[in-house]
Amino acid sequence: MTDAPRAPSHAQDQFLNVLSRDAAEAAFLDALRPAPLGVQEIGLDGLPGRVLARDIAAPVDAPPFDRATVDGFAIRAADLFEASAARPVHLRLSPETIACGTAPMLPVTPGSATPIATGGPIPRGADAVVMIEHTEPDGDGIAVARAVAPGSHISFAGSDIARGQTLLRKGTLIGAPEIAMLAAVGIDRAPVWRRPRVAVLSTGDELVQPGQPLRPAAVYDSNGPVISAALRENGCEAVHLGAVPDDPQALETAVRAAFAGHDALILSGGTSKGAGDLTVRVIEGLGAPGIVAHGVALKPGKPLCLAVCDGKPVVVLPGFPTSAMFTFHDLVAPALRAMAGLPPRGAARVEAILPLRLSSELGRTEFAMVALTEGPDGLVAHPVAKGSGAVTAFAQADGFVTVPALVDSLPPGTRAEVTLFGPRADAPGLAIIGSHCVGLDAVLGRLAGRGIRARILATGSQGGLAALRRRECDIAPIHLLDPETGAYNAPFLAEGMRLIPGWRRMQGLLFRPGDPRCEGRGLDAALAALLADPEAIMVNRNQGSGTRVLLDGLLGGARPPGYWNQPASHNAVAASIAQGRADWGMAIRPVAAAMGLGFLPVADEHYDFAVWQDPRDPAALAAFEAALADSAPELAALGFVRA
Amino acid sequence: MTDAPRAPSHAQDQFLNVLSRDAAEAAFLDALRPAPLGVQEIGLDGLPGRVLARDIAAPVDAPPFDRATVDGFAIRAADLFEASAARPVHLRLSPETIACGTAPMLPVTPGSATPIATGGPIPRGADAVVMIEHTEPDGDGIAVARAVAPGSHISFAGSDIARGQTLLRKGTLIGAPEIAMLAAVGIDRAPVWRRPRVAVLSTGDELVQPGQPLRPAAVYDSNGPVISAALRENGCEAVHLGAVPDDPQALETAVRAAFAGHDALILSGGTSKGAGDLTVRVIEGLGAPGIVAHGVALKPGKPLCLAVCDGKPVVVLPGFPTSAMFTFHDLVAPALRAMAGLPPRGAARVEAILPLRLSSELGRTEFAMVALTEGPDGLVAHPVAKGSGAVTAFAQADGFVTVPALVDSLPPGTRAEVTLFGPRADAPGLAIIGSHCVGLDAVLGRLAGRGIRARILATGSQGGLAALRRRECDIAPIHLLDPETGAYNAPFLAEGMRLIPGWRRMQGLLFRPGDPRCEGRGLDAALAALLADPEAIMVNRNQGSGTRVLLDGLLGGARPPGYWNQPASHNAVAASIAQGRADWGMAIRPVAAAMGLGFLPVADEHYDFAVWQDPRDPAALAAFEAALADSAPELAALGFVRA
Repeated sequence: MTDAPRAPSHAQDQFLNVLSRDAAEAAFLDALRPAPLGVQEIGLDGLPGRVLARDIAAPVDAPPFDRATVDGFAIRAADLFEASAARPVHLRLSPETIACGTAPMLPVTPGSATPIATGGPIPRGADAVVMIEHTEPDGDGIAVARAVAPGSHISFAGSDIARGQTLLRKGTLIGAPEIAMLAAVGIDRAPVWRRPRVAVLSTGDELVQPGQPLRPAAVYDSNGPVISAALRENGCEAVHLGAVPDDPQALETAVRAAFAGHDALILSGGTSKGAGDLTVRVIEGLGAPGIVAHGVALKPGKPLCLAVCDGKPVVVLPGFPTSAMFTFHDLVAPALRAMAGLPPRGAARVEAILPLRLSSELGRTEFAMVALTEGPDGLVAHPVAKGSGAVTAFAQADGFVTVPALVDSLPPGTRAEVTLFGPRADAPGLAIIGSHCVGLDAVLGRLAGRGIRARILATGSQGGLAALRRRECDIAPIHLLDPETGAYNAPFLAEGMRLIPGWRRMQGLLFRPGDPRCEGRGLDAALAALLADPEAIMVNRNQGSGTRVLLDGLLGGARPPGYWNQPASHNAVAASIAQGRADWGMAIRPVAAAMGLGFLPVADEHYDFAVWQDPRDPAALAAFEAALADSAPELAALGFVRA
Repeated sequence: MTDAPRAPSHAQDQFLNVLSRDAAEAAFLDALRPAPLGVQEIGLDGLPGRVLARDIAAPVDAPPFDRATVDGFAIRAADLFEASAARPVHLRLSPETIACGTAPMLPVTPGSATPIATGGPIPRGADAVVMIEHTEPDGDGIAVARAVAPGSHISFAGSDIARGQTLLRKGTLIGAPEIAMLAAVGIDRAPVWRRPRVAVLSTGDELVQPGQPLRPAAVYDSNGPVISAALRENGCEAVHLGAVPDDPQALETAVRAAFAGHDALILSGGTSKGAGDLTVRVIEGLGAPGIVAHGVALKPGKPLCLAVCDGKPVVVLPGFPTSAMFTFHDLVAPALRAMAGLPPRGAARVEAILPLRLSSELGRTEFAMVALTEGPDGLVAHPVAKGSGAVTAFAQADGFVTVPALVDSLPPGTRAEVTLFGPRADAPGLAIIGSHCVGLDAVLGRLAGRGIRARILATGSQGGLAALRRRECDIAPIHLLDPETGAYNAPFLAEGMRLIPGWRRMQGLLFRPGDPRCEGRGLDAALAALLADPEAIMVNRNQGSGTRVLLDGLLGGARPPGYWNQPASHNAVAASIAQGRADWGMAIRPVAAAMGLGFLPVADEHYDFAVWQDPRDPAALAAFEAALADSAPELAALGFVRA
């Protein structure tokens, strides 16, 4: 049984005590005092990625004995002191031969040589090894035509690792080099910090697990899997318990069970005030001191709830994916890393120029995700403004810019510090900013096959041209109609730019099949019927897009209902109509076909690629042109005609 | 049954065709043509770290419907166009309330508002959401005192991910952001490249597995575990089969079984010519084309053997650990990564100054491992010259310098390119170059507890002072006796340097208990007896060490047998005596005690720390001094007396 639907009301509490980011962090760490949970012994195979819980002393020397580092003969250097090509020295052979694994029984006496293999133990009396290549057979012995420095080709016992030395220090993150050191002194297991076992539970009636069919008004639970993955990246064992509906009894049962059986509990969803305080009420009963922060002056991430109950962290992350991941990495992961015995994650930082103003709200620490491209004056940080509900922003962004609480905006041209998500600022081989088209996916697939990584930022045609003008991207895909000349794209180029011809794609008016205002009619008649009906709701496109220009031309000055719904993609327009939220809009034909919508052709648009005549990377651009030619079959299958 | 011990003889083949590194690589890749092995479907939890084998198209939109991004009321923006604080607009409430997971049934009509929770689907007719914080209860409805832009607080269907778009491209390495994208469109499993299953087999009579007791003349098999770890880091499944002795029958059986059951086979050891050609002969029978390179002009790594048999790579890595890991990373890992579908490992590179000449052999590509410190003119690359048998070099080094085949040396001051092992050049907080002492381990343990990472390079006192003079390190631990004044350390400081007092440690003459030349005698009598006996073999220390200075003073000009054995540590000296390879030498008392050796005191040495009066990082140096004070108990336990 679930409760009645939760929705906002003025009676509910708002966040009464919104803490600053730093105050929330301090309160959380103060109540938690995160520390490793305990020690376990792990065998060599399982050690990579683990953290040593104690210093490790070497129980033996490595190498364990003086050994030969080449194939040759163990000798006394003094015997060869006067050896030369003119006067080779004869040495008699010892009756003993030393292979790897053979303990020598006889000393090397003056005037003698003992054959020895690489890795073999140096016999007593010898103080050097002469390489076999530097000797000749000579009767019952060998002739040596050069002197050898004492100590040559010997690796001395303990010279690499000395018995008793601290081999590896507590807190070391184990990788392959550390495995080599442990194995070399015969250690086959080592004490490491136990991994925190963290329960992950999503809450909300609307959640459906991936792999299941999506109900109306429901969304997939992406937070559960991604929080689990992020926990594993931070040295924890994640136990993903799925989603629990907003039923007080079910929630309480699930939360209590998850809390009891694990070292930490991460919930997501259910903190937004409108979604009710069910979760928060359950947490308050788990243990002392309970909730230490609920509502943090962070964007994204305000609804974050941090609690410590009986020494365990309990966190409610915001339901929206970007908010959830930012708050996780900023405030939760550091505490969990300390519990796992891991050092803080050292985030790399680079400086980059902001091409546009970055606005922020005073009094709130804001994180803005950015994608980096190579500009004429260094790296350029393009905001990836996707909203906190987006899941693609993290994959498209290279890092984020922090706007401090006391700053209200960063003006264009600001050199901002970008905290990178990865270890390096890898600006892509080709930066493509402008209008997106499904056909571009095919071209980029071909380009990837040629080993060139491209990044697309879908800003619309105008945004792309502006970025190209500032040389902040390599290619601007555009489809802009010049109303004066009726020509596409070329009239919009700046001096020194050229067009790589792309393809033609049919734009048209989309409607649900059977709509009597459109079905069986021509474009003009259908449009007239739609505009005449106050119940007919349109869906528009974002400003700066070529489709918007086309639509505005079609509408004259009309502003029919729905005009202000301005999604940023063809697919969003089609989805809105297919789902009945709107009745008509404009998009390209393959998108209409994919969703089974009716289509009235409007314009055979030219989708081309603006570039500079003197590009930053001519080879990468040539590869793009070749990939474009390769993509003919995919483009034809989409109904696009190559220009 | 094992064969008779293998040892070098002039009758054996030398490497007949030593190929250049590039020729060996070309021959190997040409015969192998490495490509992914096949596709498997993996569930979300198992996907991180895997590589997509196909493009993934989004089966649904994300978000799947237009949804509210705040708690508030779905409204028509036109209704609020003229709303202001002076003239709030009244909207009547719709009878419907939209929570997450609730599909709206009623449209928003002019003049009305529908309560909606964050994430709730926008009802038909509404084109914006007004935040609950910006409204007041007003009779049976709400009052709104500000205008709202159309589209406000709505996340449009498909605006993040549009149905049909290429969500993730073939070849993508999956991390948490990609998990979020897959989950958000309901995908719970994805096709990834199958991981190559690689068998790892060590060969050699001398090998003992870690965890087992070490026989005389035997060494631990460190290559097996470390190659397994490196394989896993490069996207392979490693199957470590242990070690097989040098018995032709056993070797053939083991190699054939490992080859048959896996996608690739990596052997280590057994390629050095002196160790015989057993392994190579077995490989020749495995399949065509067989061995493509045996002997490569690489240092370290010459004995490398590369083969391709029936389409599978078969590699014999050199037995010495550093050689094995360099050749693995340079020539083997790239092919295995291609088989795993992984992109080449992008190694980061930095420029650093060489403080000393780096010599190389013409005609051979040489890799020199280096540790980085911060110098006055940027990073300094100190060679970590440990020999190819060392296992600690990889852990101490930050990367390597490549000396091309046609260069015979790089002079001091060269700005060389360093290929980093890790993602970043992390020069440590404190660079300590000079003499090593077991007491220093205790101090560094305390320092690590204060959060400061230090790097020690054990070059001996003189090398440390030279590095300090060039300001390439922060601290030089020294114990140098000035024979003229009888004073320690202070006479050696340059102007502007000072000493941090360390501790006193007793140096003495070491011997096996019961040795009649020493037991029960005083130092002078013992030394006289040892020098008088031509059978008494000493073990010396490396030049530049303080102990060597002390010993040379004790010996006058004498050069007794063993004088040229010059290991670099106290422990190596003690081990040599304990194992009977030498009879006497000099080391500090705790080392003698640890190995149960006799000890005749020679000098109460002062081990101090030379630093600049104007250090690079005063805070880190202060932390070092504090850690030194903290270490009093550990130092006392070692028998050291704080100065």
